[in-house]
Amino acid sequence: MKAGFCSLIALQFRLLLDSLPHESITLSKAAMVDVMTKRKLAEYLFDRIKDSGVDTTFGIPGDFILPLYAAQEKTKLKTVVMTHEPSVGYAADAYARLKGLGVGLVTYGAGGLNMINSVGLAYAEESPLLIISGSPETRYRSQKPQLHHCVKNFDTQFNVFKEVTESQALLANPATAQDEIDRVFETTTKYSRPGYIEIPRDMVNYELDVQESAPSAMEAPSAALEEAVHEIIDRLKEAQQPVLFVGVEVRRFNLKDKVVALAEALNIPVVTSILGKASFPESHPCFAGNYFGQFGNPKVKEYVESADLILSLGTVLTEMETAGYTAKLPAKALIQCTAHEVTAGHHTYHGVNLRSLIDQLIDLTTSKVKPTLRFSLPSIEPELIEPKNGDKNLTVAHMINQLNDMMSEKFAVVSDVGDCLYAGMSLKTDIFIAPGYYSSMGFGVPAGIGAQIANPKRRSIILVGDGGFQMTGMEISTAIKLGINPIVILFNNASYAMLRFIDQKRDYYDLQRWDYALLAKALGGKGVTAQTPEEFKQALKDAKNSDSLFLIDARISEDDISPTLRRLTDHFGKKVKASIS
Amino acid sequence: MKAGFCSLIALQFRLLLDSLPHESITLSKAAMVDVMTKRKLAEYLFDRIKDSGVDTTFGIPGDFILPLYAAQEKTKLKTVVMTHEPSVGYAADAYARLKGLGVGLVTYGAGGLNMINSVGLAYAEESPLLIISGSPETRYRSQKPQLHHCVKNFDTQFNVFKEVTESQALLANPATAQDEIDRVFETTTKYSRPGYIEIPRDMVNYELDVQESAPSAMEAPSAALEEAVHEIIDRLKEAQQPVLFVGVEVRRFNLKDKVVALAEALNIPVVTSILGKASFPESHPCFAGNYFGQFGNPKVKEYVESADLILSLGTVLTEMETAGYTAKLPAKALIQCTAHEVTAGHHTYHGVNLRSLIDQLIDLTTSKVKPTLRFSLPSIEPELIEPKNGDKNLTVAHMINQLNDMMSEKFAVVSDVGDCLYAGMSLKTDIFIAPGYYSSMGFGVPAGIGAQIANPKRRSIILVGDGGFQMTGMEISTAIKLGINPIVILFNNASYAMLRFIDQKRDYYDLQRWDYALLAKALGGKGVTAQTPEEFKQALKDAKNSDSLFLIDARISEDDISPTLRRLTDHFGKKVKASIS
Ligand SMILES: Cc1ncc(C[n+]2csc(CCOP(=O)(O)OP(=O)(O)O)c2C)c(N)n1
Ligand SMILES: Cc1ncc(C[n+]2csc(CCOP(=O)(O)OP(=O)(O)O)c2C)c(N)n1
Repeated sequence: MKAGFCSLIALQFRLLLDSLPHESITLSKAAMVDVMTKRKLAEYLFDRIKDSGVDTTFGIPGDFILPLYAAQEKTKLKTVVMTHEPSVGYAADAYARLKGLGVGLVTYGAGGLNMINSVGLAYAEESPLLIISGSPETRYRSQKPQLHHCVKNFDTQFNVFKEVTESQALLANPATAQDEIDRVFETTTKYSRPGYIEIPRDMVNYELDVQESAPSAMEAPSAALEEAVHEIIDRLKEAQQPVLFVGVEVRRFNLKDKVVALAEALNIPVVTSILGKASFPESHPCFAGNYFGQFGNPKVKEYVESADLILSLGTVLTEMETAGYTAKLPAKALIQCTAHEVTAGHHTYHGVNLRSLIDQLIDLTTSKVKPTLRFSLPSIEPELIEPKNGDKNLTVAHMINQLNDMMSEKFAVVSDVGDCLYAGMSLKTDIFIAPGYYSSMGFGVPAGIGAQIANPKRRSIILVGDGGFQMTGMEISTAIKLGINPIVILFNNASYAMLRFIDQKRDYYDLQRWDYALLAKALGGKGVTAQTPEEFKQALKDAKNSDSLFLIDARISEDDISPTLRRLTDHFGKKVKASIS
Repeated sequence: MKAGFCSLIALQFRLLLDSLPHESITLSKAAMVDVMTKRKLAEYLFDRIKDSGVDTTFGIPGDFILPLYAAQEKTKLKTVVMTHEPSVGYAADAYARLKGLGVGLVTYGAGGLNMINSVGLAYAEESPLLIISGSPETRYRSQKPQLHHCVKNFDTQFNVFKEVTESQALLANPATAQDEIDRVFETTTKYSRPGYIEIPRDMVNYELDVQESAPSAMEAPSAALEEAVHEIIDRLKEAQQPVLFVGVEVRRFNLKDKVVALAEALNIPVVTSILGKASFPESHPCFAGNYFGQFGNPKVKEYVESADLILSLGTVLTEMETAGYTAKLPAKALIQCTAHEVTAGHHTYHGVNLRSLIDQLIDLTTSKVKPTLRFSLPSIEPELIEPKNGDKNLTVAHMINQLNDMMSEKFAVVSDVGDCLYAGMSLKTDIFIAPGYYSSMGFGVPAGIGAQIANPKRRSIILVGDGGFQMTGMEISTAIKLGINPIVILFNNASYAMLRFIDQKRDYYDLQRWDYALLAKALGGKGVTAQTPEEFKQALKDAKNSDSLFLIDARISEDDISPTLRRLTDHFGKKVKASIS
């Protein structure tokens, strides 16, 4: 990615480059260095942010970052002030998942350290989240820290961020600041993992000598790539019942459109993994379901596990992806393509870039010259989710069915952790954002706001348990302030139901019952309570027609959970119970 | 401190020791080792917690810590489940400040990493907070982490906690587990700073061979101590206008009663520092005010700065304690006694323990043999806080005066950050808990709950800004659940006023106006809005009579702040404005 570089000189330089014969573009770096311009550190930084396609940042101001906020105000970037720093991370993470970069601006200590969990989540889930923190002036840093917001020493926060980010920079030296900024941007987007930039207060308006960065060299296609691609094509030619198994890295590296093109070229059935849910649009005719081992739709399981070729693109076979290692993906059938390598049977091709691999596969399967490979699509019924017979009370099954009736390309589904996540697995949606791997509660509401800001054409349907809502649900205030209208579906079972189901009923799993509808009103939004399927239906209708935030307090009985969670807790509960003796 | 050790064998061992002639107590460690007993790791841990005087822990359960919660249920410890992990830290911190130890129990990753800021706060503010986190089974730890709640590797959380705690232990080895637990307990209380214990899930019920720990050796009084004490006594004898300047370490090391005894022996005026507020009871006749350089009561400033002996006990001269370095404490007059050293003029006595120092001073000044030193107490008027003439709207000045009218030994004041903290400085109170140094917002409400649990005889008066309340105010739900009745005074100025005052009016300092009274109702508590001095008076009366949580939404105008904050922002604002160019 090129450096943000908006000055006139830079423009003239580009025009100059464009007018040269093509070969001369390979200017030596020395030649480039000559083209310098003076820019304030903050201006350079915000230009890079804007050039990455970001139009909104998230944060909470505080004295160590006030100069940066003031500098930001002079740019065209919008900024959203959240209520609490953990939410800053979640909102910017969701934004990042949709836009390729999300930015959080926080103050030192109380700000930065207050969002370590959100950044850890983004690391584990591979989201390109960039956190920028202000910090004390460079001239103080040699002294003993007796400033507010300091913990052990001036490096505490930097050291902590090192543990949860891919790259870090402390911009204390004007001579290297530009390179440091560039490095963190590049790493953050290349690995789709968080980066951290710390800016001492006296550096914000420092005039840097900024230089145009050399155009980044194109990666040459590797021999390993050629070989891997040919093995895949050969295996496709032999296959009777192949399936594309699409995972989370497709979303992370922004390859969704390419995978759609490949699926269409092959007319091949596509399933997604659990973390990869909606990495392939679920309204697409090739889409055949979510594969979640023995916890998911049994028909999808049957189809995938009997396939003679499982071409996995960007799945990461974690505990969760393999449904607690219940997934049966025989090495004989599986070709596993991840961000940087391909494993077929028992051999691995290293250094194979997923993007290049998919590009080549598309080339080879759509080319007029080659014999066209076309498969046929099975018809796999979505799991029938049936409310218990004659149940007058609202159940999760009713909610799933009614939400599916409403689903369209106007919505994105964003979920917290708890049964809402497993219920969410049964929703048919093209966009699904959740912390399915790291599993931190509190993600849902702030992430739903971040997602809708990233893509205003899709209204967020936020699924959240009462436990998760009690952590960060107040963030609905931010949606109300911004005048955006997510729909919050609150799975209210008055308990930490997931824990209760893997263990047993205990006092410390009980939650206070809040009047969530009244609470939404207290914050200036709309809220209703639904206790029956009819009330829930009406509530959804009202939500759909509302142009402001709408919260539905869905009161479900204590012992009602989704079919997926029931299978999952049956499985994990045994382990947990064994450890509680 | 001795290990918790409740078994019969231990008791018999103690009886045996007691019946031996005194000298035989110096048993060699080898002899002690013989007395062993089998205890589950969790039992040993919870015994140590109980033996430290703790009766309640704070936390949020999660699968990695479920076995520990189940084990805790079998003890007599109560546990309070909070709504969000940051609050767990704040509540346990406040509890620790009053009881000498506070304990938080959280799950791995999403739990532990979600409270790093609270732990950093406790480190900076020297609070003996012990965090216990569950973690994955030891047998997984050699593998690549693809478990939920993991970030980079299994050590991420441990490494992060290293940066914000005084001591840490990962209990992976049964042979050393007891020693490790003991070490963390001892360090936590000795340095009054946070400790971290991580317990893999399969270790919780592991049977340890527990041994009685050797009685800890008494520290011999040092020669430096003798010399320092004599210099102090000599200086006291010469002094015409001496003052005791009492700081935060007096509270941290639980020396409040001793300092009272010393002050009474000398009949000496006592001022407290800002972080040390209420380290000396403010209802005591010797109490002369809070000293806060040029930000505080000008009369206190005048008195302290003209004293010929300022005997400082446990103040730590940070940026905040010195009121942004405006404090004028001439080296000639100052004797500065901190936890481990004494500095008089330009020489320092190292290794002088504050507790021993105060003990010796009491001995020497109350002894019948020595000539008694008695001073006379000045009468320093508390600062007159006058509401603007004829102001019909509620102002911070009204609130301070009316709260002072209500103050008694039935209350403790707990404050968040913002103007509430500076207003709080003007309240006359014997207990005052606030994050005055680290300055993290969000502390107030959860800490107020922790404080009232630690000392149920004192009702918490929680001072909090609307910004701070929006972070963790939902925690009032926990007070309602427990049936305790703190009073929440919400300084509602619809903005981050502190930032606005050190900078200027900007959009990103505006806060959404919530209907906080309605919100309290939505959570099952009581709440009222007060817009005039009369309404506030009535609200306070109703709060006083209420036996459940009571929230007062005090709506103050945008441009009204406390006198202390006005002096402070006038001072710091210049610096901040200079850095925003
Ligand atoms: C931040 C955080 N703290 C604790 C946990 C442990 N945990 C996992 S599931 C769960 C209960 C979730 O409760 P709720 O949001 O009400 O959803 P439900 O299980 O009732 O569907 C808890 C506490 C977690 N995942 N994240
Ligand atoms: C957790 C945290 N985030 C950010 C800050 C930076 N900060 C310092 S004061 C302040 C405003 C406080 O607002 P409020 O609680 O409403 O009190 P007021 O200043 O209006 O009295 C902020 C955001 C902080 N101290 N702590």
